[in-house]
Amino acid sequence: MEKIKQLQNDITEFIGKCDFGGNPAELYEPISYTILQKGKRLRPMLCLLANDMFDGDETDALWPALALETFHNFTLIHDDIMDQAPLRRGMETVYQKWNSNIAILSGDAMLAMAFEFAMKTKNGIATAQLLGKVAREVCEGQQFDLNYETRDEITIAEYLEMIRLKTAVLLATSLQMGATIAGADEKNIQALYDFGINIGMSFQLQDDILDLYSDVEVFGKRHGGDIADNKKTYLYLKALELADEKDRKRLQRYFSMRVDHDEEEKIAEVKKIYDRLHVKEEVERVMLEYDRKAFALLDSIAVPEEKKKHLRTYAEMLSGRKK
Amino acid sequence: MEKIKQLQNDITEFIGKCDFGGNPAELYEPISYTILQKGKRLRPMLCLLANDMFDGDETDALWPALALETFHNFTLIHDDIMDQAPLRRGMETVYQKWNSNIAILSGDAMLAMAFEFAMKTKNGIATAQLLGKVAREVCEGQQFDLNYETRDEITIAEYLEMIRLKTAVLLATSLQMGATIAGADEKNIQALYDFGINIGMSFQLQDDILDLYSDVEVFGKRHGGDIADNKKTYLYLKALELADEKDRKRLQRYFSMRVDHDEEEKIAEVKKIYDRLHVKEEVERVMLEYDRKAFALLDSIAVPEEKKKHLRTYAEMLSGRKK
Repeated sequence: MEKIKQLQNDITEFIGKCDFGGNPAELYEPISYTILQKGKRLRPMLCLLANDMFDGDETDALWPALALETFHNFTLIHDDIMDQAPLRRGMETVYQKWNSNIAILSGDAMLAMAFEFAMKTKNGIATAQLLGKVAREVCEGQQFDLNYETRDEITIAEYLEMIRLKTAVLLATSLQMGATIAGADEKNIQALYDFGINIGMSFQLQDDILDLYSDVEVFGKRHGGDIADNKKTYLYLKALELADEKDRKRLQRYFSMRVDHDEEEKIAEVKKIYDRLHVKEEVERVMLEYDRKAFALLDSIAVPEEKKKHLRTYAEMLSGRKK
Repeated sequence: MEKIKQLQNDITEFIGKCDFGGNPAELYEPISYTILQKGKRLRPMLCLLANDMFDGDETDALWPALALETFHNFTLIHDDIMDQAPLRRGMETVYQKWNSNIAILSGDAMLAMAFEFAMKTKNGIATAQLLGKVAREVCEGQQFDLNYETRDEITIAEYLEMIRLKTAVLLATSLQMGATIAGADEKNIQALYDFGINIGMSFQLQDDILDLYSDVEVFGKRHGGDIADNKKTYLYLKALELADEKDRKRLQRYFSMRVDHDEEEKIAEVKKIYDRLHVKEEVERVMLEYDRKAFALLDSIAVPEEKKKHLRTYAEMLSGRKK
């Protein structure tokens, strides 16, 4: 735990010392506002932990770690416009606090900054190339997500591919980037990347659960927002699969409703169906399967356990979604 | 002219052969739609011409040239959302043809692609760093532009700085990128960059004129759109400066009107004031001054005239805005 705390302090301190200011203020204030919000710094942490695992120099990984955090925050700013989300981490979104034009532009500037930061290391072209690839994949994932909002029939396989692109590839790339900076060999990098994909899938499924089954204060988002927005999450798709004809029709009717409907009632009624069908437990079972695969991949990496233990501990904390 | 035609053919062929496709179609179709539209390929041409001027290998400059075109098209897609522009180059904008979410996302993917393309050359980190810097500047320029739409008092100096960031720096960077790939020395690169800034300023001022004083068929945009949108261009700012109290008040009143007003009448009335004050001629005088500075800078570059003549001819065509 000492190592994890140290890296967490290092990245927090590093981000705190960075100057995200500039002129005009309307462009740069939303950037500081977003990136300086307290957060887990999950992607930077994965980058630093992977770099440490292969004996990389931490100072080589700090800028790329910031690049990943900057990129991630860019995606949040643009996603919040598309989702018309008023809250994020319990704070007003940039779209809400300023306006959508400012949110588009400050997001654009952040994407460019992410590339600038990624290049600030030895062999910076390799890190920037990884960022380019993952940026495109994350856009693909978000587009699938938008498509599925208005499409009636989504398979569970399509949903899983969407969350792989939208969430898992960035966690996997964070690990890959850290290991690449440390000069790890291709086989180990691939296993670590695949570990990240599996952890990421589990992470996103847990997010789907937390959206409905957690306190808004803890989670910092609107409660049941996925249901209100007709997001066809794993919970919904599994419920459709398990439901009888009557419940299936009710679910489909609720998920074709627009905003003018009573939101509270809709969320409560859909939750009742989910609970009756035990879909939460079903999603948890799938999550465990991803976790199991992830840790088997971590086991396969050819470095001493002593070097792996920090990432292992961190990922275990993550899958329990502890603090 | 042979060289210019050859480079124009090469970049057209290169872009035509590129595959901008991918899955989901909703993300990639707007990208092909935008980038495959016929255009001058101004920024790629400046990159290739600069590279040729310093005896660079054309094949090293084609991907970076495409990066510049891709970046430029990304800015158009996002600007058109912010300006709610229905037409661009006489075609529907992405925002209009699809929707603003798709326009945000496909623009994002294009910005990432621009970085990927910029890196596809020897010493690709240098080209990607140039792209990072200019990307941030262009965002700053666009934000200033948005700010000025709702701010009452804009000085001509502020306007010029805005168009420098929004337009000129990308033309300058296109030249800088080509020269950097060719391995030109710093002093020559700086002179070429400054040449690009001056050409760019002249280019944007001409754009302001063409917005009002050209046929819509030639220009491919809505006629007098800047006046309709209350854009405080050089024409407007100069008119304010030259106008008597009565005309100044009329101009200010017209430029505080919102869309519900009769657009045709507004454009015609503002144009009458401009014509009476001869602001078109005033802007043309300033353009010529920028052109003069630009060509003096080109003269100062330490390569034989034989090597400069293609860029010189191209820039002359540009300032006459011939086909």
